[in-house]
Amino acid sequence: MRAPQSAAVRTTVAEDLIDLRSDTVTRPTAGMREAMAAAEVGDDVYGEDPTVNGLEAEVAALFGHEAALFAPTGSMANQIALQLLVPPGDELLCDADAHVVTYEIGAAAAYGGISSRTWPAVGADVDPDVVAGMIRPDGYFAVPTRAIAVEQTHNRGGGGVIPLATLRELRRVADDAGLALHCDGARIWHAHVADGVPLAEYGRLFDTMSVCLSKGLGAPVGSLVVGSAEKIARARMVRKRMGGGMRQAGVLAAAGRYALAHHVGRLAEDHAKAARLAEAVAPYGVLAAVVRTNVVPLDLTKSPLDARALAAAAREEGVLVSVLGPRTARLVTHMDVDDAAVDRAAAALTRILRA
Amino acid sequence: MRAPQSAAVRTTVAEDLIDLRSDTVTRPTAGMREAMAAAEVGDDVYGEDPTVNGLEAEVAALFGHEAALFAPTGSMANQIALQLLVPPGDELLCDADAHVVTYEIGAAAAYGGISSRTWPAVGADVDPDVVAGMIRPDGYFAVPTRAIAVEQTHNRGGGGVIPLATLRELRRVADDAGLALHCDGARIWHAHVADGVPLAEYGRLFDTMSVCLSKGLGAPVGSLVVGSAEKIARARMVRKRMGGGMRQAGVLAAAGRYALAHHVGRLAEDHAKAARLAEAVAPYGVLAAVVRTNVVPLDLTKSPLDARALAAAAREEGVLVSVLGPRTARLVTHMDVDDAAVDRAAAALTRILRA
Amino acid sequence: MRAPQSAAVRTTVAEDLIDLRSDTVTRPTAGMREAMAAAEVGDDVYGEDPTVNGLEAEVAALFGHEAALFAPTGSMANQIALQLLVPPGDELLCDADAHVVTYEIGAAAAYGGISSRTWPAVGADVDPDVVAGMIRPDGYFAVPTRAIAVEQTHNRGGGGVIPLATLRELRRVADDAGLALHCDGARIWHAHVADGVPLAEYGRLFDTMSVCLSKGLGAPVGSLVVGSAEKIARARMVRKRMGGGMRQAGVLAAAGRYALAHHVGRLAEDHAKAARLAEAVAPYGVLAAVVRTNVVPLDLTKSPLDARALAAAAREEGVLVSVLGPRTARLVTHMDVDDAAVDRAAAALTRILRA
Amino acid sequence: MRAPQSAAVRTTVAEDLIDLRSDTVTRPTAGMREAMAAAEVGDDVYGEDPTVNGLEAEVAALFGHEAALFAPTGSMANQIALQLLVPPGDELLCDADAHVVTYEIGAAAAYGGISSRTWPAVGADVDPDVVAGMIRPDGYFAVPTRAIAVEQTHNRGGGGVIPLATLRELRRVADDAGLALHCDGARIWHAHVADGVPLAEYGRLFDTMSVCLSKGLGAPVGSLVVGSAEKIARARMVRKRMGGGMRQAGVLAAAGRYALAHHVGRLAEDHAKAARLAEAVAPYGVLAAVVRTNVVPLDLTKSPLDARALAAAAREEGVLVSVLGPRTARLVTHMDVDDAAVDRAAAALTRILRA
Repeated sequence: MRAPQSAAVRTTVAEDLIDLRSDTVTRPTAGMREAMAAAEVGDDVYGEDPTVNGLEAEVAALFGHEAALFAPTGSMANQIALQLLVPPGDELLCDADAHVVTYEIGAAAAYGGISSRTWPAVGADVDPDVVAGMIRPDGYFAVPTRAIAVEQTHNRGGGGVIPLATLRELRRVADDAGLALHCDGARIWHAHVADGVPLAEYGRLFDTMSVCLSKGLGAPVGSLVVGSAEKIARARMVRKRMGGGMRQAGVLAAAGRYALAHHVGRLAEDHAKAARLAEAVAPYGVLAAVVRTNVVPLDLTKSPLDARALAAAAREEGVLVSVLGPRTARLVTHMDVDDAAVDRAAAALTRILRA
Repeated sequence: MRAPQSAAVRTTVAEDLIDLRSDTVTRPTAGMREAMAAAEVGDDVYGEDPTVNGLEAEVAALFGHEAALFAPTGSMANQIALQLLVPPGDELLCDADAHVVTYEIGAAAAYGGISSRTWPAVGADVDPDVVAGMIRPDGYFAVPTRAIAVEQTHNRGGGGVIPLATLRELRRVADDAGLALHCDGARIWHAHVADGVPLAEYGRLFDTMSVCLSKGLGAPVGSLVVGSAEKIARARMVRKRMGGGMRQAGVLAAAGRYALAHHVGRLAEDHAKAARLAEAVAPYGVLAAVVRTNVVPLDLTKSPLDARALAAAAREEGVLVSVLGPRTARLVTHMDVDDAAVDRAAAALTRILRA
Repeated sequence: MRAPQSAAVRTTVAEDLIDLRSDTVTRPTAGMREAMAAAEVGDDVYGEDPTVNGLEAEVAALFGHEAALFAPTGSMANQIALQLLVPPGDELLCDADAHVVTYEIGAAAAYGGISSRTWPAVGADVDPDVVAGMIRPDGYFAVPTRAIAVEQTHNRGGGGVIPLATLRELRRVADDAGLALHCDGARIWHAHVADGVPLAEYGRLFDTMSVCLSKGLGAPVGSLVVGSAEKIARARMVRKRMGGGMRQAGVLAAAGRYALAHHVGRLAEDHAKAARLAEAVAPYGVLAAVVRTNVVPLDLTKSPLDARALAAAAREEGVLVSVLGPRTARLVTHMDVDDAAVDRAAAALTRILRA
Repeated sequence: MRAPQSAAVRTTVAEDLIDLRSDTVTRPTAGMREAMAAAEVGDDVYGEDPTVNGLEAEVAALFGHEAALFAPTGSMANQIALQLLVPPGDELLCDADAHVVTYEIGAAAAYGGISSRTWPAVGADVDPDVVAGMIRPDGYFAVPTRAIAVEQTHNRGGGGVIPLATLRELRRVADDAGLALHCDGARIWHAHVADGVPLAEYGRLFDTMSVCLSKGLGAPVGSLVVGSAEKIARARMVRKRMGGGMRQAGVLAAAGRYALAHHVGRLAEDHAKAARLAEAVAPYGVLAAVVRTNVVPLDLTKSPLDARALAAAAREEGVLVSVLGPRTARLVTHMDVDDAAVDRAAAALTRILRA
């Protein structure tokens, strides 16, 4: 293994920068910090942290599942779920841009021994027939498919929302073939707010879900795996094996409970901010897709600027942008970017793209 | 892990059946058996089997590489190569129908920890631009792509031959991104015969290749990994770890050397037989692709018969056919099916499809 | 995989119980909670959390190493280090009671592919000659040994402290064979306090260390991997693959910095409390070893009570004890058990053992 | 991964050398070659090779088990069995010198994800109480032990034979803890001949066994896994994943059937030859253990010659010896070393040791 070419430099982000790289950068609010400081805690490896236990029960109930398990990251929550669903050497189907095969550093294969094949990177526009056509039956000659994973909303797919009808069709496809269906629901809250689909309505479609508290919801740390009581009992073992069995995790869970109580409804504001950014850049032909949630995907294929150049120019203007590929970039709105900042960012991007 | 639903029943195939399931069913000829019986042997784990050493040198030279290593199967040869090219947790790109992610039971992920994403199942019609668009750069945030694998000829792709120009373009794509290029060349011999491309011409395009002696070439057992001296030295360790370090393997290598000396050129006959079968079934709208080598792919989507029904009817007529999917089947010609048998099979299939 | 037989029941521990099961049960103090609430934070996946960066620099300096990396648990810190030192399929040597092959649920093999052989469970009484005799040389025929791991203090070894001279001898053994030496230093602080060995003196003996903030030091969550800059750069990738890349982890790191500033020196009090417990039980022939730090190991082989019976009787008296085996149990002192509680526990255990 | 330091050089062994390195060097006899040349074969991946099927049925019956599976090597047979018995992340216990954790290049961990702890390298002198004391119960906190492996006869243990009473005691230990018991029976034939224990008597003690045809029995290639019908059905999948699904393997199985028919009883001659070699070297204080079978273990701790020097001197005299460690070496007798050769070897070794 080589040292990574671009291992993150330890630095800090100046307070006056408008950080549109990701909604992971949000900092805990004063109210959230108070909740953390006051959290009742215990040893969660022993199952004795009341705040963690409360959060797990609350999230399970939100999605209509029996149980949930707190994990330090969304990546770990996803990987725990995949290890529950797919034995080593068996197969997972997902899209070629899915977080689980892109941003989790190969963990499904490296740690779960999970073989994967991918349908094309169509973001939220999943075609259940294409998925169905890829399934390999159980048997002696070929690797058997065991699970399908979808991502709601879809991160690299520009924050797109998979329609409920599509998800129901995928559930049918999975059932017909005896497969499990997993939802990487890091931003399921945004889908819920954008489409008005109740969380429990989503919940009933999936065998397992991961949901994240530290992206749009603004908690500093934490995700949960959601599933049946039997699966979550096994998940506790897998979490320990992955190194995710924290002790007085209630200090984190308290932030999560606060976020659920205060930060779900307000996501509509982030969606509105993203829409305004989209409106600002659209005239320059760089909007990659209709903006539905808090992600503004940029396609710079026809622009004179490539992604690095755009990001560099934006930084000069005090705006941070994510580079996803040579000609693709991304703006993400969140609770730490207020309306004024969005206006400034929109103006800055307009200046850059016009030039 | 469950017991497979259709674990092969131990049985034998009656001698009078026309076995078009696969070219793996070929039996050693009298001449080959003589060569095996007379083989000079030694302990190949110690590197002392002269017949194995001779075969390895011969195959390396055929493909213009420094070294080669004998392995018990094509699956092992492929997996050894992939483990050399892609560290655990890093990524391989291949097509969704590739043998390495279909028929090798998830070994790349299960044993190599190799993460995979796939381009659509287009068989030999690989689009280098699509492949290039999937590559993830080395870095901290996403799983880095390390290798691309192609299959020549393409098994599930109907025995299609990837054009030399496409392979050269893929080599350029790989070089531009600093990736390795592997060829699953189980039937590279058929491509060589069909397109007239010298084996060394293929060889120079790939970092590693697997080539098989026990399919169209008719040896009972054996494949080789081909690559640089440094890679093959490491491959010996991986082969031992995989459980492929056989002792007096010269008895098998002798069959392989015999096959190389006597059975490469004659593959043209198998191609001609496949063409005749294709001609017979084409009028019924079931030919899935133009037949270039020894595979006749059948697409029964528009046929009243599904794949299982066709196979059952053919068996009644004394012809064995492979079922690949609900509506896909395959006929494969080889040295144990002579012209008369091909004629009988063609007639039988015509009767079945006409009905 | 089965659901575990004894998956932790979610519950809480009544405040008036004297919890001697482990030093992991400590709760953050008021001062620590204040530090957490006030922590300056950023996105640590981007390397931008100033409190995490500060903690990492501070811990690296304490041990005289170039760099350190924050991780959610001691298990993850150990496993990251082992994955840096031992490639999949190569070998680690450690003792049969080591935390890394006991309490980390097989992660070294399951996720790192690391083969392990163990010397007998002698706790801190490591014999460097025995270790040296187990090393397999690099080569073609046998699995090559790559690293040795020791545990300081030794958890299942009754909190024993490996003498500095032994560690130096192990370093020489490792150097002679070209191996790496890892220290599971979850309780290295206790060894430092018990033996007066400077932390940097320990640090210079090891290629990698894990050190834990959430055991005796009383932080709610967090451990660090310590090593060279090159190793820690790679460790960031491994941490992400393991699902340990948290975002605003500064809220946890602040607790860790507070613990380092306020809770190291006070460990001597925990050692004194353990000595008093040891003194109380010694007359009944159940003390398994001389108590050096904060662990009191009990060997009930010659007692009429087995471990479960002892724990049940103690619980009746309001004292929680860990059962490690049919006839082995453990008492652990820590900052949440004050002198009065220790006296009550000593009296309760005396009553039980006398009966 | 590095290229191995001592990757076997491709060479051949001169016919006049007396090769006592291992019984793996045996070459097929004329009768065996005839059997191979005449073998009826089919495609064993399809379960259609009558000679393989016959061999599998024969070996299963010999050990009183339901089924058996042919594999290219003893390493693969062992690893298939271990993967059947121990899920990834769970634990295997074996001795520190066991073939499965020494000469199989870490495959149990690398491919099976199997965690291992080892009891000391006592060869055949296994102490069931020591083994019992190492077992970890199923549960939430520690890695659960799933299987125990023993080696009969013990290769690095000087060809020692584990007494039947010990094996029965180990069976009881395994049963008490709900564990599986595996036998690496590469040389079980030698134990059977030395102790007169029927093969079926051994068979009934183990959940799975590997038995080898290409060591003392003289076949060029091949081992089998023995177990229940359910296990062997799963083993077929694992074998394919490991790359061990050969096609017309009947050419190898025929040699195995010949070996079983002609070469088991004659092992007593090899034992007698080993005894004569032992007698020759014993006066020089280098015999490491009483010789029971075909292995003569040498301990050169008190000799002026180290193992490399001894091997070099022996080679000068035309005798090949295995170096196992700095001061340990091994002589192995087999069917390709006749009485005259043994006498010459004994004389040569006497000359060397006397000097």
